[in-house]
Amino acid sequence: MDISIYYEQFLNYLNAQNLIREPKNLYEPIDYILELGGKRIRPLLTLMAADIFSNDYKKALPAALAVEVFHNFTLVHDDIMDDAPLRRGKQTVHEKWNINTGILSGDAMLILAYQYFENYEPSIFQKLAQLFSKTALEVCDGQQLDVDFETKSSVTIDDYIRMITLKTSVLVGAALKMGAIVAKADEKEAEYLYKYGLNLGIAFQLQDDYLDTFGNPKTFGKQVGGDIIENKKTYLYLKALEVSNEEDERELRFFYKEKLKNNTDKIAKVSQIFERNNIPKFTHELIEYYTNKAFESLDKMAISNEFKQHLKDFGNSLMNRKV
Amino acid sequence: MDISIYYEQFLNYLNAQNLIREPKNLYEPIDYILELGGKRIRPLLTLMAADIFSNDYKKALPAALAVEVFHNFTLVHDDIMDDAPLRRGKQTVHEKWNINTGILSGDAMLILAYQYFENYEPSIFQKLAQLFSKTALEVCDGQQLDVDFETKSSVTIDDYIRMITLKTSVLVGAALKMGAIVAKADEKEAEYLYKYGLNLGIAFQLQDDYLDTFGNPKTFGKQVGGDIIENKKTYLYLKALEVSNEEDERELRFFYKEKLKNNTDKIAKVSQIFERNNIPKFTHELIEYYTNKAFESLDKMAISNEFKQHLKDFGNSLMNRKV
Repeated sequence: MDISIYYEQFLNYLNAQNLIREPKNLYEPIDYILELGGKRIRPLLTLMAADIFSNDYKKALPAALAVEVFHNFTLVHDDIMDDAPLRRGKQTVHEKWNINTGILSGDAMLILAYQYFENYEPSIFQKLAQLFSKTALEVCDGQQLDVDFETKSSVTIDDYIRMITLKTSVLVGAALKMGAIVAKADEKEAEYLYKYGLNLGIAFQLQDDYLDTFGNPKTFGKQVGGDIIENKKTYLYLKALEVSNEEDERELRFFYKEKLKNNTDKIAKVSQIFERNNIPKFTHELIEYYTNKAFESLDKMAISNEFKQHLKDFGNSLMNRKV
Repeated sequence: MDISIYYEQFLNYLNAQNLIREPKNLYEPIDYILELGGKRIRPLLTLMAADIFSNDYKKALPAALAVEVFHNFTLVHDDIMDDAPLRRGKQTVHEKWNINTGILSGDAMLILAYQYFENYEPSIFQKLAQLFSKTALEVCDGQQLDVDFETKSSVTIDDYIRMITLKTSVLVGAALKMGAIVAKADEKEAEYLYKYGLNLGIAFQLQDDYLDTFGNPKTFGKQVGGDIIENKKTYLYLKALEVSNEEDERELRFFYKEKLKNNTDKIAKVSQIFERNNIPKFTHELIEYYTNKAFESLDKMAISNEFKQHLKDFGNSLMNRKV
């Protein structure tokens, strides 16, 4: 079980797809976003799960690609909705082309994702497509909640965790479960793995939120401070409202009331509020809480300790990432 | 075989779905567009095909709904891309809500469409989902060609027919074939029915193009003259370029060069050019050509003459429609 081999094999498989075909204006953006890089976490998890249960991770390559194509579809459409200029340090699809291209190429990606399941026999196909549809719809629900939160004044930390569970974590869980389905794993084992992914996904998103404010601009890929600019009600913001004194709370609410042209001062001031209220520490504690919850799910599984350790190592490496 | 019963049963089935759930901002637009009405041609064809091959059209209701939800998904996203204010005489989704809602609710509809296939056993599920993915991707290809044609100067009538085949006709063919799949019809028969739908779909779109310019504003639902306003290179325009004298051609090209604020004069002048060049007649002839091609495919089928006549009557009624 060697993650660098999965990574290499996945990229080989992706590159062998010849995604660009006629009409080129539809497929070139798809190739562009998929070739932009990224950590490929979700497809790696699919391959890892298949390897654990069947010792044949290659059989899971089409399912892994489906997950990655779907994930990138959500990035393309979300970047339009968030008006984001950068993705992985490069222009977003709607910036490089235009909004209509972003919409339509995204649509095609969602359909392409389903097509990769056609590599499997009917019963596996149905299980994969069914889990995929359920998950994809949950991701839409999560994205809608994210949009709703922008104009909702009473968002709680629980609301936020529920939103990121839908928007991010269910896909991490599903990526693992798809590998288990391809490998014809026991349903109960597949479910434990799903829960591992679900909690790891929450920890992962909290880490993402932390890096969005406190990450290194040279390595983070996205615009550092982007969440602050967009007044995103992340855990950092919601926790700060909860624990800060009146003055900090007032300042925070003031900054999150409107969007500014020049954000340098806003980003600096908000970061300072976060720091003097120990938000980095609180965030790390919550990341640890969900990481441990993920590992507890692993402990219940009937797989070898070696496999469990591999999954824990992978989880820990995600939580110590800088990008 | 009574089309009004299919229509009623389909609407009953649609209304029983309880489409609105949390988060409401995601599902209310879906309910809105599906309840706007429309001719429901595609789901009726699915039910009709199932009835022909199995005498059990009700079994095809989920597949029929999948087709209708997908069709409405394309309307929601296309209306954003075309900046269209009206659909079926009412506000389009992105006008009533906003562009982001149109994008995300559309995405959810595409996923919901796949979920309706989960009502079938694995082998039927796979066949339906496979045909659906292939068709959906072709529809995206067609939409992209439509967008490409806006800025392409050398569009031929053949290019145009190919574009509408992908954008419109493949779904008409697939709607019929899905009914046949649910009814476990012979593959060869299903293919003839697909071809019938494909050619009927071309005739249908040409009729739509005709009505877009020459339809009655009171009954048409969309803005009459919309294609002229948008400089759409439809068959009407392309044929007019082919047969008109130099002066008409120059005037036509002049009008299609830019988009205007006030279009009353443009619509009147372009319509006159079309009329004095016999474009209505040419269009009707081409509609007849594709309708006959559709009927030839029926003639090859092993179904009863009564069924063939029903399908022909339905085709003829579509070609004589005013909306």
